Amino acid sequence: MNVRLTIEYDGTNYYGWQAQPAGPTIQGTIEEALNVLLRQRVRIQGSGRTDAGVHAVGQVANFVCLEGRDLRRLQAGLNALTPKDIVIKRVERVDAAFDARRDARNRIYEYHLWTQPWESVFQRRYAWHVRRPLQVSRMRAVLPFLEGEHDFSSFRAAGCGAAHPVRKIHRNTLVEKQDELVYHIEATGYLRHMVRNLVGTLVEVGTGERSVEGFEDLIGARDRMCAGPTAPPQGLFLTEVCYD
Amino acid sequence: MNVRLTIEYDGTNYYGWQAQPAGPTIQGTIEEALNVLLRQRVRIQGSGRTDAGVHAVGQVANFVCLEGRDLRRLQAGLNALTPKDIVIKRVERVDAAFDARRDARNRIYEYHLWTQPWESVFQRRYAWHVRRPLQVSRMRAVLPFLEGEHDFSSFRAAGCGAAHPVRKIHRNTLVEKQDELVYHIEATGYLRHMVRNLVGTLVEVGTGERSVEGFEDLIGARDRMCAGPTAPPQGLFLTEVCYD
Repeated sequence: MNVRLTIEYDGTNYYGWQAQPAGPTIQGTIEEALNVLLRQRVRIQGSGRTDAGVHAVGQVANFVCLEGRDLRRLQAGLNALTPKDIVIKRVERVDAAFDARRDARNRIYEYHLWTQPWESVFQRRYAWHVRRPLQVSRMRAVLPFLEGEHDFSSFRAAGCGAAHPVRKIHRNTLVEKQDELVYHIEATGYLRHMVRNLVGTLVEVGTGERSVEGFEDLIGARDRMCAGPTAPPQGLFLTEVCYD
Repeated sequence: MNVRLTIEYDGTNYYGWQAQPAGPTIQGTIEEALNVLLRQRVRIQGSGRTDAGVHAVGQVANFVCLEGRDLRRLQAGLNALTPKDIVIKRVERVDAAFDARRDARNRIYEYHLWTQPWESVFQRRYAWHVRRPLQVSRMRAVLPFLEGEHDFSSFRAAGCGAAHPVRKIHRNTLVEKQDELVYHIEATGYLRHMVRNLVGTLVEVGTGERSVEGFEDLIGARDRMCAGPTAPPQGLFLTEVCYD
């Protein structure tokens, strides 16, 4: 049977999603628990990788196991065996053809910027603290340039394994909350560090270091050296993965 | 000179506000840092104590030290010397007569209830997870009984050192957020564990274990045995202390 998991995690203490020998990962931790519970080696397929230190409220993964498993017990078992910073929110049986990565139509991320002068005790692990004043209207002015299908090479990290650099951003917005600025982005897929590179560059627009007018040319340049720095991982959340 | 501090803290790893030998406290940690920075033993006076595990976003305290201190440097020094789960948000010189405890006119607390079926990775240290369904309309129906001046003995923990059990609640409300229910309370002062005992009792009203009709009698009984259990500390935040 094919089983789909919806997962929430605090990425602070993990080397990202993908299993690797350097240290604990989300995928590796869940697979270890599944091996114990199912007494069977399974490999889970995530909708996509998240970097070290990045969080998720709605990561989706699937795996195939022997028929007849009690999914309620499996969920309880997984939540008992994994540490408290990983929670399996939902476990569902899905069609045999379902593949969490290939079938994902949209992936929604949020990036949290803490904009108060003081360091936040509660958000320090969940936001990037930007002390310089940000002009949100300037940042908003460049967002329409990003929407649609573009070659995003200017925001692609070295070591990105994608076959081509063209991606489609359906929507991106900035929402001002009480003490935070939250960047929402919805795209079919992303290049390596793409959201964090976009945020690092948007912050430069917000502080005035980078012009609004030059933003379209920056995308057109297709050169990572032209864009801003990579925003730190702790502000980033994979919020939702959408399927047909 | 008399100096006023505004303090944010994550109470998870502390034995509450008040200095005590059992383990680290917020007051003790800040006093130790002040002793180093001022090369002078000072005692800080908080607006009130918070219990072990309770948080604050706007605790207020004051202390008296020698004239001529540079307050900007003092704030930077305090934030460098204290752990990351304590942040000094503001340092101000105040009138010699100011006393953070005696002059506090109102203290505002918030209590966060996590109402989703899954354990929250991000709120587990900052909310009480109530798995039973809550009827918010029932809980709201009893809030007006609590407002005004009452003898709150029914919600007073053993060992409370207050001289008398009468307190005045100016306002109390329940706000439904996306995945949470937040209880706001504004009162001149509180008895020991009063907010947590109120929340534990309100939850019993919400689940239907306790009647709405009997709530006024419960207050009138002035008997702690008649009220509900003490809600756990991690959902409670001291949000603001108001002065004239």
